[in-house]
Amino acid sequence: MNRQTWLAGVDVGGTTIKLAILTEEGSFIEKWEIPTNTAENGHYIPGDIAAALKDRLASHQEEFSVLKGIGVGAPGFIEADTGFVYQAVNIGWQNYPLSERLGRETGVPVYANNDANLAAAGEMWKGAGKGAPNMLAVTLGTGVGGGLIAEGRILQGAYGMAGEIGHITSIPSGGSPCNCGKTGCLETVSSATGIVRLAMEKVHHGESEGLKALFDDTGTLSAKDVFDEAEKGDAGAEAVVEEAMYHLGLAVGNLANSLNPNVIVIGGGVSRAGEKLLRVLRRHFDRFALPKIAAETTFEIAELGNDAGVLGAAWLAREKTGRYSS
Amino acid sequence: MNRQTWLAGVDVGGTTIKLAILTEEGSFIEKWEIPTNTAENGHYIPGDIAAALKDRLASHQEEFSVLKGIGVGAPGFIEADTGFVYQAVNIGWQNYPLSERLGRETGVPVYANNDANLAAAGEMWKGAGKGAPNMLAVTLGTGVGGGLIAEGRILQGAYGMAGEIGHITSIPSGGSPCNCGKTGCLETVSSATGIVRLAMEKVHHGESEGLKALFDDTGTLSAKDVFDEAEKGDAGAEAVVEEAMYHLGLAVGNLANSLNPNVIVIGGGVSRAGEKLLRVLRRHFDRFALPKIAAETTFEIAELGNDAGVLGAAWLAREKTGRYSS
Repeated sequence: MNRQTWLAGVDVGGTTIKLAILTEEGSFIEKWEIPTNTAENGHYIPGDIAAALKDRLASHQEEFSVLKGIGVGAPGFIEADTGFVYQAVNIGWQNYPLSERLGRETGVPVYANNDANLAAAGEMWKGAGKGAPNMLAVTLGTGVGGGLIAEGRILQGAYGMAGEIGHITSIPSGGSPCNCGKTGCLETVSSATGIVRLAMEKVHHGESEGLKALFDDTGTLSAKDVFDEAEKGDAGAEAVVEEAMYHLGLAVGNLANSLNPNVIVIGGGVSRAGEKLLRVLRRHFDRFALPKIAAETTFEIAELGNDAGVLGAAWLAREKTGRYSS
Repeated sequence: MNRQTWLAGVDVGGTTIKLAILTEEGSFIEKWEIPTNTAENGHYIPGDIAAALKDRLASHQEEFSVLKGIGVGAPGFIEADTGFVYQAVNIGWQNYPLSERLGRETGVPVYANNDANLAAAGEMWKGAGKGAPNMLAVTLGTGVGGGLIAEGRILQGAYGMAGEIGHITSIPSGGSPCNCGKTGCLETVSSATGIVRLAMEKVHHGESEGLKALFDDTGTLSAKDVFDEAEKGDAGAEAVVEEAMYHLGLAVGNLANSLNPNVIVIGGGVSRAGEKLLRVLRRHFDRFALPKIAAETTFEIAELGNDAGVLGAAWLAREKTGRYSS
């Protein structure tokens, strides 16, 4: 086996850490998960990652030295150049030198970035954005995450906060409170959480027979339920889909006027609605984007699911080591 | 004189072409204007630019060979890599190989870009954004132009259309028509034209004594008049300033949440209102930006005026030639 020809991708989440070992071309050699130990503000995590990688490399008769680089994503504000985590609330890290610690444990160069940025990079490298140098990735999950790629590079911004598109203000006054401290953010209306909240209002006000029947039956509602009921013609569900996609179309249309992406990739749990979602979103987007932008921009549903993060992390390691070594 | 140590910056507008010859450090050696000859769809412009540069270089006993590169800005959609102009309506160019033509006339490498992008780059290099790698530049003139700088590079987008922030939709339904074919664009309310339009409505509806008196007296109103009257406490003028800056603050706040700039630079004729403008804009921005973004982002009034374009053009030539030659 040649030295330094593999990459590791790590995606640190609040409950599990996803790991992968890949070839330089991005083919999976190994892919697995370990639990996230958030004890002592995440102090043990670099050691856990190093032990997991070492163990799995050993099963291939390999050591850390086979790794060209390790990419790591985490949910929070991360300084890309240094891999310093300002804050990652769900993990416990605050002013935490992530790259330095994991580098010390492994002896391998470590590159860190925000997890939503790396999921976007993963989709650019191996997924729905393949080949597009300018990409806007939107993750519709518990919140609304974003990753912006320009000329094949992740946009970081001044403090690693670029891509926080979930906090675009969609409802300037009278909107619902958001975790960020503002009100009316995009994620209060277009995330899975936001869509279910709007749907539950319809149920409570007796404005959706379909959603009420589903909720009475199962005790729960998902964003996908709302898209499915809308497709069947339920007026309440249709109104929720319209509202959520109107705000997303306006926000993404305005971003597209400013950034001119080749492709907009929609991921996260809500994106399981697939074409049902894209059709409505596209209609609103086309009203708000400049005519030439509307004509040239394509929409895709994300393809990589939970693999996007580790692939993006591996891409980052590949990009960074490519610049500094042969 | 050493060979290839000067730069030329050219800013092609609908009525005049601004030219400058500068040192590599960006000090002006010469700065002048010639009229824009839009005959035959702008066919004569490269020849006019070449003749003007040659003539002025000769007055320094120099020839084209002293130029390391020529940067050119023009109002329109331009492919940065090739200097190919898709369309520049005011000039007459359509599918026009600008860099190639001017390169053939001069024998000097030519690099072209959108004029608003280059004005932003000029402010980054020598003006209000000095030293800021991540910058959002907004030009409030006849329209609303924009230039986005990320990590010291101009964001181009897929088809050179990035930065078209004037066409962010501010009024999603019932807004005024915009030249772009949409309605309710930011530039319909926050440009000089938009502010004067809103002010004239106040005059016609008898809602601003101050603006009516000014208009009756002079037969005209400027955006600066509106800010001045608002400062004096005229309720109608105050309402116009609030409306224009509310929409600008919302649009720029949302962009800042997505791009995380170090600094937002406000230029164009409207920016002559200075602190009067920034104070109101900042109040709205702070409502819509994420708390950390609001705390960290600074605002500045553009400093370079009409020189921004030629300085940005020279910066572009410097950047591009710096990569390919010593």
